[in-house]
Formats: sequence, structure tokens, C-alpha cells
Amino acid sequence: MAAEIVNPGSAGGTESSPGESGEPFDPAFALHRGGKMAVQATVPVRNKDDLSLAYTPGVAKVCTAIAEQPELVHDYTWKSQVVAVVTDGTAVLGLGDIGPEASLPVMEGKAILFKQFGGVDAVPIALATTDTDEIVDTVVRLAPSFGGVNLEDISAPRCFEIERKLQERLDIPVFHDDQHGTAVVTLAALRNAAKLTGRALGDLRAVISGAGAAGVAIAKFLLAAGLGDVAVADRKGIVSRDRDDLNPVKRELAEITNRAGLSGSLETALAGADVFIGVSGGTVSETAVASMAPGAFVFAMANPNPEVHPDVAHKYAAVVATGRSDYPNQINNVLAFPGIFAGALQVRASRITEGMKIAAANALADVVGDALAPDCVIPSPFDERVAPAVTAAVAAAARAEGVARR
Amino acid sequence: MAAEIVNPGSAGGTESSPGESGEPFDPAFALHRGGKMAVQATVPVRNKDDLSLAYTPGVAKVCTAIAEQPELVHDYTWKSQVVAVVTDGTAVLGLGDIGPEASLPVMEGKAILFKQFGGVDAVPIALATTDTDEIVDTVVRLAPSFGGVNLEDISAPRCFEIERKLQERLDIPVFHDDQHGTAVVTLAALRNAAKLTGRALGDLRAVISGAGAAGVAIAKFLLAAGLGDVAVADRKGIVSRDRDDLNPVKRELAEITNRAGLSGSLETALAGADVFIGVSGGTVSETAVASMAPGAFVFAMANPNPEVHPDVAHKYAAVVATGRSDYPNQINNVLAFPGIFAGALQVRASRITEGMKIAAANALADVVGDALAPDCVIPSPFDERVAPAVTAAVAAAARAEGVARR
Repeated sequence: MAAEIVNPGSAGGTESSPGESGEPFDPAFALHRGGKMAVQATVPVRNKDDLSLAYTPGVAKVCTAIAEQPELVHDYTWKSQVVAVVTDGTAVLGLGDIGPEASLPVMEGKAILFKQFGGVDAVPIALATTDTDEIVDTVVRLAPSFGGVNLEDISAPRCFEIERKLQERLDIPVFHDDQHGTAVVTLAALRNAAKLTGRALGDLRAVISGAGAAGVAIAKFLLAAGLGDVAVADRKGIVSRDRDDLNPVKRELAEITNRAGLSGSLETALAGADVFIGVSGGTVSETAVASMAPGAFVFAMANPNPEVHPDVAHKYAAVVATGRSDYPNQINNVLAFPGIFAGALQVRASRITEGMKIAAANALADVVGDALAPDCVIPSPFDERVAPAVTAAVAAAARAEGVARR
Repeated sequence: MAAEIVNPGSAGGTESSPGESGEPFDPAFALHRGGKMAVQATVPVRNKDDLSLAYTPGVAKVCTAIAEQPELVHDYTWKSQVVAVVTDGTAVLGLGDIGPEASLPVMEGKAILFKQFGGVDAVPIALATTDTDEIVDTVVRLAPSFGGVNLEDISAPRCFEIERKLQERLDIPVFHDDQHGTAVVTLAALRNAAKLTGRALGDLRAVISGAGAAGVAIAKFLLAAGLGDVAVADRKGIVSRDRDDLNPVKRELAEITNRAGLSGSLETALAGADVFIGVSGGTVSETAVASMAPGAFVFAMANPNPEVHPDVAHKYAAVVATGRSDYPNQINNVLAFPGIFAGALQVRASRITEGMKIAAANALADVVGDALAPDCVIPSPFDERVAPAVTAAVAAAARAEGVARR
């Protein structure tokens, strides 16, 4: 979720750290004791007869059948319903590079969200390497056991190369949720905001604060969806062709974004812009927000401190969204990734295409239906219609795009 | 279990293969459809409040605490209760090198046995490489996410090097069950057979048929436990110092076994021997069995066809054991590995020592108690006293040997 992108501020302060003598005061520690997940058998193993079917000798027949017809692995193991949640611990929430062990609570959380919201089994895999090629090689070797790979909290720009190489080498979906999950939910909200205010996506100019995993992916995805123009700003200002300090990912971004040819600060870009999308954790001045076009959309997704406070944003904007659960219009990745993987796994898709992501965003936007209003451009994460709608749309799109294998 | 060592014969024959049109006739296929396991959340994720504790923002406090005190990962994630069941698919049951995908039903079976019998969570990891160093590097990179590593169905002699290197590089238990699980259960049965017939282990000379993972480990373990002498035979006969065709593992075996200085065939070694242990899948003639010492023990563990049919063995032997569930005295690894890992994880042992394995074997033997009889030298896999007894013994031994971390 967008919540993962930026600094949680005081979280982890000493007042809530675990004490020497046992359980700390914070309820988060009590809840996390012993972890948040478990494995369960889905077949009985109560007696000799059970054992002889689920294990030797019965299992040998199933193994032999898969050795002869490899695609049967999808029918007779959990491969087709289990996703590896892979991280190297380098960009965990807003905490940064805290290492694989410290990232595990987030990966477990992700795994149980996969299960709860998408019915997808998921296994946390936090790797003891940050080397791009080692991560790629490791995940390729793990792939026989999994139906998909959800990359999580891997820092930019390595995350782009890792995802691309894995997609080239594997025939199962590989999806960096910090990029694409965030982009899908953002597009869904944006589409509904445009609908609400009677505008076409092609008429909108958006400004994205943040050129990390989420910012880059949102920029590309909004352009693919037909937005009029997108400018991205990093800490040094607008990503533009006249800058000589850009890494290869940002150079590519400079080529495809910023059709208006702007340069300078984020504030410069915001003057007259229709959409602000914050995935940076910085702050944006009220003056800059006031300089946006009338009826603007402000999606300030930093958590827990949005780039623009919602109360300020509401003074100038027609639609306001955040990454927080205590304000309306929460941009939360959990609206997307469970259904996206569930749909892809259902049809054994070999990859997750742009078309599947667009279909997911459209389905997510459509769930809002007649409830569409300035404080309801995106469904609640607990709206039970969401995952089935996204799952069905993604599965149908996979078939339409020829990447489904059943 | 010993059941995994040798050829299941007709298993996988065409009469039980899945048909073109869907479900095959064999109940093993019906049971395996969709796999045999799932993940479950152990904490609620029903509403915003749940989500804010189990995921952002609450989880950030837990991550930060682990980053500051790494050992807290054991308290606040499932690491300490989850084992990776790692294979490369090269020595699966008696089917041989069938590859990672085809091995998955066995790995899932192993995982649910871990859960059912030891309360230990386990995740199947079938690797797309058979290169020794690649396997080692991959498992080292996975290690932050797991409390232990169960190596499974990796062919000899690579399995020995892989296990040794992993034990050197990791500070969590690494245990090749085909070796040590089999050895522990064999020793337990042998100890009870000796007790029943009033003999000391030091008075016994054993002959092992098979110099693969199980045969090598059993030989070393029985010597460590004090057996008088052990000879191992591979397909070419007794492993002895005068052979020039031995790989390094068998050369080492030739140094420490065969104190009697025998050479020649398996049958030669059996003449006058007190114990036969079959982990090869070959067959042993009735004449050779008849040549053993009076009151011999015959553990013919090949599955489904024991090296010596139990009816034949009973003509000459005082105690007969097999790997089959339909005869008394089943040598089944499930008697050992769940409790061994449960005990090691309970005290966060850094490794599984010889002393812990000896303790496991003794505890397992002791469960039989007053029921000791020729057809009861080892408990049933479904004896509910087994796992708690093995767990407690292994945990205590870990503490006694200084490898426990709590």
C-alpha cells in the first residue's frame, strides 16, 4: 500500500519498544508474538490409510505423473495457489534498509493479506543478499515451488532491474507491488475522480512527488492509461531532459514524461496542474496547492504524514485522497494485489501484463458505482466486492491478452 | 522415512495415471488435487483496527525493534517455528532424479507431517538447480526467513557436502532427514531389539546394504552409539580399504567401518552377522539370511519390496523390521524428524548435534516401554507419546551440549 512508501515518523520510538522483562506495552507487540501465520494441512493425516495416500506409497504415483506431464504440478500441488513474497529488506515501509530479519513482520503481514483478501497462500522470503544478480538467481531457483512472485520493499532503482530480469527468466507472474499495486489503485481513484468531475483522463496534467518505485510506476501507468501529461519530481526537482544527474531509470522517465517541458521545483510543476500525487514523504506548501488548477485532485499518500494535510487540501481540491485509514479515500494496495494475483493464478497466467493491470484498475473503480462522491472515489479495503471483481477482471484480461494457460 | 529410499516398483503405472478427461481413478490423485496444504493467518484481519496493528502502521514498531535487537525476530515472527523443506528433486523416493516440480508432492507431504506430528510449520522449497554450490548459496540466502532447514531427497554424495557447508555457514539447524532421521529411528529399533534379546550394542556386528545417504549416516551413527562393528555394502560389495573405486565419502567410510576387515560380497559380510540393515532396494537371498548369527535382527527397509520378505526373515531372525506400514516394526522417519525439529526450535538450537540425535533415539526407544516384544521394538507413527518425548529429549540435549540459545 502507499502506506509503505514513506517514513512512519515516530513509529518504533522507545516508548513502545519491548522491555527487558517481556511483553512491551504496545498492542502491536502482543499481536506479533509468535508471528502472524501458520501452515495447515488440507488433507487428513490421522491414520495409516491417510498416510499411505498423502505420503508414501501413494504420493509416488502423483510424482511420477508430474514427471511425465509437468503441467500437472498445477493440479496436484499447492504451486498454483501460493505466492512467494520476496524482499531483501532494503526499503521497508519508510524505515529504509533494515535488513531481511527486521522486514519479516511486514512480509508476514503481506502474506496474511494475500490470504484474507484474495484467498491466495503466500510465504515470506526475506533474502540475505542485496546483490541484484544474486536476488534474481535465487528467485529463479525458488520458482518451481511457487505460482507467482510478489516483490516487496526492494529499493529503487535495483527493484526495476530485478523485476525485469525475473520477468524475462520466469514463466510465472512477477509483480513488484510497491510499483504496480500502488499504480493500479491510484489509477482507479483518479478515474473515478475524473468521472465525478466530468473530465477525461486525456485532459489532466498530473505531478508526482517521488521518483522511487511507486513514483516511476505510477507515472508510466498513468501515461499508458491515457493521462494528458505527467511530471515527476524527485528531491532535486522536476525530472527533465535538461538534468545531467539522472540515473538510467530517471533518464527514461525524462523521455516519456513532462511533455510540458517544465523544469525547476515541484512547486513550479504544481502551478496549474490538475492532479498531485504524493509518494515521497516530503511536504508541499499550501501556496503550491493553491496554485493548482481549479477542481484539482490531491492524492497525498505519504503515511502517517501526508504531503498535504487533508484539511488544507480540501480548501482547494475537488477530490482528496491519502494513504491513511482514518480519512476517506484511502489509497491502499490491499485493494489490488490480492485480486491481481488471484486472477492471474486462476488462469495460470505466465505474466501480469499492462492490460491486466488496467483491467484491475477499471474493475476497482467500478466497484464504487453509484456511491461515487468526493469522499468516495475508491472502495474501502473491507468492501467484500473488491477482490472478486478484480480477480474476475484480471483473469478475463489474461485470457484476452493470450497469457492465460487455462 | 525409510520408505523413501528405494524403488516403489509399480507405483505410477499407467493404470493409475491421470486420464485426459480429468480425475484419474486412483484415490491418491483425488486427494492431491489442489495440493495438501495452505497458509492461515493466526491473527485477525477483519477491520481497520486489526489492519493497523498487523500491518501498517503498527508493524513498523515491531520491525524497528527487530532492527535494533535482531534476536527479537524469534519472538515476533514465525521464523522460530517454520522449517524450509529443501530439495533439488534428484533422489525422490525411489524414483530418482525426477526434478523439482515432480518432487513437490513429497515435499508437501513432508511439510504436513511436520505440522501434524510436531506442530512445526514447514514450507516446500524445490530448487531449480542441482549444483552443489548454488544450492548452498541459495539456502544461505533464504535462511533469514526460517528457523531450520530440512534437506530432503538430494542424491548422494552431493547431499553430504551440501549439508556440511550449510552447517558451517548457518546458525540454525540443518538436517538431512534421509540420513539422520533414518539413522535415529534405526538406532531406536536396534537398541530395543538388543534389550529384548539381552545383548549390548557393543557385542553386535551389523551389515548395511546401501551406501547412499541413509546407509552412510546409519553406519556412522551406529558406530557413534557404540555398535561393535558395522560393514557397509554398495552394489559392488563391501566398502573396504582394499577397493580403489570409492568416492571420498566411501573412502572415509572404509576407514571407520569394517573393523573385521571383510571384503567381497554382501553375502560374505552377512555370514555370522548379528544385524542386517537394508536401505538399498536390492534383494538378499534366503541362504544369506540363514547364514547370519543366531537371534539376528533383520531390518529390511526397502519399500514397497523389502530386501528380505518378512516371512522369510522370521524363519531365522529374532526381530524383523521393515519400512512398510502393513507389517509390525515400521522404521518410519516420521517418528523422528518432527520431534527433533520441534525440540531444536523450542530452545533455538544453533545446530543438531550427535548428542541430540542420540537423545532422540533413546527417547523414541523408551516410548515402547513395557510393550517391548519381537513385534514391538519401535512405536507406531501414530503413538501420540512419540513427538512430545522426542521433543523434550532433544531440547534437553541441546541445552546440555551448549547449543541452545534459550
